[in-house]
Amino acid sequence: MNAVKTWINTELQQKPSIFSKAIVEAACTCFFVFIGLGANSSKILTRQYMGIDVQLAWASGIGMGVLMGSRVSGPHINPAVSFMFLVQKKMSLSHCLVYCFAQTFGAFIAAAMIFGIYYDALNAFDGGIRTIHGANATGLMFSSFPQDYLSLTNGLFDQVANTAVLCIGVKALTDKKADIHILLHPFIIITFIFLIVSSLSLNAGSSINPARDFGPRLFMLLAGYDWEVFSYNNYKWWWVPIVGPMTGGVVGGIWYDLCIGYHMPDLSIRNINRTRTFIEPIFEVQPDDEEADYSDNNTVDDKIST
Amino acid sequence: MNAVKTWINTELQQKPSIFSKAIVEAACTCFFVFIGLGANSSKILTRQYMGIDVQLAWASGIGMGVLMGSRVSGPHINPAVSFMFLVQKKMSLSHCLVYCFAQTFGAFIAAAMIFGIYYDALNAFDGGIRTIHGANATGLMFSSFPQDYLSLTNGLFDQVANTAVLCIGVKALTDKKADIHILLHPFIIITFIFLIVSSLSLNAGSSINPARDFGPRLFMLLAGYDWEVFSYNNYKWWWVPIVGPMTGGVVGGIWYDLCIGYHMPDLSIRNINRTRTFIEPIFEVQPDDEEADYSDNNTVDDKIST
Amino acid sequence: MNAVKTWINTELQQKPSIFSKAIVEAACTCFFVFIGLGANSSKILTRQYMGIDVQLAWASGIGMGVLMGSRVSGPHINPAVSFMFLVQKKMSLSHCLVYCFAQTFGAFIAAAMIFGIYYDALNAFDGGIRTIHGANATGLMFSSFPQDYLSLTNGLFDQVANTAVLCIGVKALTDKKADIHILLHPFIIITFIFLIVSSLSLNAGSSINPARDFGPRLFMLLAGYDWEVFSYNNYKWWWVPIVGPMTGGVVGGIWYDLCIGYHMPDLSIRNINRTRTFIEPIFEVQPDDEEADYSDNNTVDDKIST
Amino acid sequence: MNAVKTWINTELQQKPSIFSKAIVEAACTCFFVFIGLGANSSKILTRQYMGIDVQLAWASGIGMGVLMGSRVSGPHINPAVSFMFLVQKKMSLSHCLVYCFAQTFGAFIAAAMIFGIYYDALNAFDGGIRTIHGANATGLMFSSFPQDYLSLTNGLFDQVANTAVLCIGVKALTDKKADIHILLHPFIIITFIFLIVSSLSLNAGSSINPARDFGPRLFMLLAGYDWEVFSYNNYKWWWVPIVGPMTGGVVGGIWYDLCIGYHMPDLSIRNINRTRTFIEPIFEVQPDDEEADYSDNNTVDDKIST
Repeated sequence: MNAVKTWINTELQQKPSIFSKAIVEAACTCFFVFIGLGANSSKILTRQYMGIDVQLAWASGIGMGVLMGSRVSGPHINPAVSFMFLVQKKMSLSHCLVYCFAQTFGAFIAAAMIFGIYYDALNAFDGGIRTIHGANATGLMFSSFPQDYLSLTNGLFDQVANTAVLCIGVKALTDKKADIHILLHPFIIITFIFLIVSSLSLNAGSSINPARDFGPRLFMLLAGYDWEVFSYNNYKWWWVPIVGPMTGGVVGGIWYDLCIGYHMPDLSIRNINRTRTFIEPIFEVQPDDEEADYSDNNTVDDKIST
Repeated sequence: MNAVKTWINTELQQKPSIFSKAIVEAACTCFFVFIGLGANSSKILTRQYMGIDVQLAWASGIGMGVLMGSRVSGPHINPAVSFMFLVQKKMSLSHCLVYCFAQTFGAFIAAAMIFGIYYDALNAFDGGIRTIHGANATGLMFSSFPQDYLSLTNGLFDQVANTAVLCIGVKALTDKKADIHILLHPFIIITFIFLIVSSLSLNAGSSINPARDFGPRLFMLLAGYDWEVFSYNNYKWWWVPIVGPMTGGVVGGIWYDLCIGYHMPDLSIRNINRTRTFIEPIFEVQPDDEEADYSDNNTVDDKIST
Repeated sequence: MNAVKTWINTELQQKPSIFSKAIVEAACTCFFVFIGLGANSSKILTRQYMGIDVQLAWASGIGMGVLMGSRVSGPHINPAVSFMFLVQKKMSLSHCLVYCFAQTFGAFIAAAMIFGIYYDALNAFDGGIRTIHGANATGLMFSSFPQDYLSLTNGLFDQVANTAVLCIGVKALTDKKADIHILLHPFIIITFIFLIVSSLSLNAGSSINPARDFGPRLFMLLAGYDWEVFSYNNYKWWWVPIVGPMTGGVVGGIWYDLCIGYHMPDLSIRNINRTRTFIEPIFEVQPDDEEADYSDNNTVDDKIST
Repeated sequence: MNAVKTWINTELQQKPSIFSKAIVEAACTCFFVFIGLGANSSKILTRQYMGIDVQLAWASGIGMGVLMGSRVSGPHINPAVSFMFLVQKKMSLSHCLVYCFAQTFGAFIAAAMIFGIYYDALNAFDGGIRTIHGANATGLMFSSFPQDYLSLTNGLFDQVANTAVLCIGVKALTDKKADIHILLHPFIIITFIFLIVSSLSLNAGSSINPARDFGPRLFMLLAGYDWEVFSYNNYKWWWVPIVGPMTGGVVGGIWYDLCIGYHMPDLSIRNINRTRTFIEPIFEVQPDDEEADYSDNNTVDDKIST
């Protein structure tokens, strides 16, 4: 046991490996999806309107998930965010793929746990017959499904816009010129998520996260739902919460840069490295070196004047 | 591309020009109006009561919009605020006009984007017939309309009072003697907006922002609504959410000064320049020099002890 | 005008006189009562349930009222708080009386303003017949009235308990040994008020503030309500929201001292004067000298490490 | 009186004894249970849905309870938390037992106070016949009872999961490597409790605290409820909110260590003792010395850079 502890202390803790980052990404994604799906379930299984408590549960779950993983992997807890950093060359392709897989896995596990916690409630609600249509539909406990009126074009535009707002918030938080104080970060993350789910979720639920949507959708096949979770609307939906957010993340980043970022004064007299954001460690990846060198962060941490 | 990037780095980032400030004003106004109208739409299109989630969506959207633009243009994101600073001689007339135009333009674009995102939902709701009266009325998705009982006098008093509260908050935040710590600013902005919309919005929706009201009202003419959006109540409404807030902003500023500001100790031993508020840069405008000199702000920024 | 400005700068701003403190107490009380009564009115006049938005409106209004007046008069904005400080010999009797009068006056003005803003709405609701009973009762727009089942004993206990919780919060914030950071103060004030109104307001509305209850009750006589606002329940109510909170404030202070305060370590190595609370200035009043000497506060302010 | 005050100053305040810690644990537990049961009662006695206001009342009550007791006993205000520290050898068995008894006693007193405050309301609601079944059931005013569909296995899993999330939050806050700034602590505590009650309370109310559940359940026997409060569901419930949370606390701690804690970089260059958490004092207990030596904390306090 002592040898294991020594290995943990020396190997894992001095420099988080991609293995560690993947575990933390999976765990933090699992955490917020678990909370969010629990909130959805509490409303669906009591036939209540999904109001502000569900919105704040998702927002807070994401905020706390980001808070817990901030010193290891970012965290991103969202393939759309990882993809945005990949496009901006702040992340290597292999890291991005590992992140996306870990996030999806974490969301899958979260769905399984919610299924277990609400197993009796679900059976009492639908008598054991899982369905995504009709009076006893429970599909929204796990994944997103569009409103009946929503066309493919409108659905894609909706998903792009939702995630663009998310990534505008991510850019604002990680913009060194903005230098938003780190004490505000959890509050701002929660606020941005709340903004999105309270104003843009009518059409299809504001999934804004391919892992949060696809992981539980895969689980639904094991939970008794039929293949319709993928064939819904003649296969015109299951991929929209993946492609839309991936695109929206990039669009949001561009919007921020063009409309706000480039216009912000670069006051070099101020030590702009002082700001350590939650997602900052991942910025230091060199394309040739897939493991971030955290020794520089010691200097950053010293200067933190929180 | 490199030449463009160089131009961006040297020209735009050392000293935000009025062009940059206008873009940021438009972008931040667009952001919060987009969020707010989305929240309104989510309720109207599901025939739900506009409750605390809509109130907090507007408040949070404004808070985040102010946060994002704080290092460039203030930001004001509200012609009533710009007009209050003009009256207090903290802003030149040309800047004020540019700001007002940019804010209105941003709100117009936000309305267009909401129309796009909820296009299918809107058609499913009203069958393509846009109206501001009756069971399928959707005018409140975009602009404000008064309750049937509201007289012109009461309506003006209502708009003045609403915006007076807003500008009391702006004055409190920007009062150097109060020295409210910058970390509290987003939280306070959100709180003040929430106060207003939760207590004073019954009569006419607490628009408190001429740009947020007029920009989308203009767009409604393109969205299929008829001229009644301006002729409503025999032309006795469309101008009230413009004149009322402009007046209320000044009234609020005077109330704060008379009742609180002048009575606050001026403890000169404390370095009162230490506080950099979100809206502070615009204070340094000299009437003869339309572009703020930001070199002084370097000194201010050095002393920031956030 | 210059002579007036000079007088303002020298006389009012170096040392807030009791006149200044009274104005600020009246203004801040007016502010939060205005917001709270507006929230109540928005629900009563639409026959809606007074939910979390009303609770948060009261809490936020009080939080912002305290924030704005913190550098002048405390502020207390509540005779129960002033009375608690009087009993603890942190305030002279004359100051306490001036504060109570100013707070009541501010609440009276707030009620008048709400009456003006919702004049048309009120007439549309009750047809001009003001009543505190029946289907068109609107008394709760202004003051508190107990549930029909509430006995006098239970009512007094209810009012004492409500305000005891408030003053536990005030004691916790002003306890130098606790040294709660000043950045948390607005958040904590809002939280304590929310706690009270969300859990203890069923019986009689959690007035917890004699000024907030009595000022508007006086105004109701001018607004068309009859003498029953005082004779309600055979004169067994109107004085309960005055005596109950005054008692509850003292009880809360004693509870805090016995159960928490005396047990807190007094770590004298730490500069416990570093903490400037919102209500601290009033602590320095010597019974013989009715005007606080603020020169000591310069030292305090220098050490503030916000 | 002077001798008593001197004894208080020297004996109690320099080093909180186990007696002091017990009083504070009881008081802070009493505080949050009083608030939470009051919120429950406000809804049950008006036949309203227990929505976000109840969730936030519990969360805020716990946040404020933790805030007030932080400099004396932690505080834990939850036997599951005390048990988690006992298992982690950060607390002695005798201290743990004293804490658990004090917490349960505080919750018992809180239930008695709520019974007193809502005595008239309760009698008006059920006519004096206390019951936990049927249309006039009021058992949820005091303690938790499961949904009819909930099996024993699902109930245990539910209780374990609920409290695991709580203790994940406790671990995140007290993890020195995470170094979450103390200014965020009240906000994070409130958020974690809100997460739990908004997403995982459907089955049995998210008691997550054996003292909060058992203390009021004991009181119910004095309040007129019959023995069924313990014999409910053939004695298959009353012990579940005790065993489940005790287990869940340990499970949550292990989950955090395995999935996040061990992967966090241990950046020894940073003075990780700088962080004083709310629950830190209790970490210093040596098994042989049951009273924590607080002299070391003076050094800690000096370095606090809040």
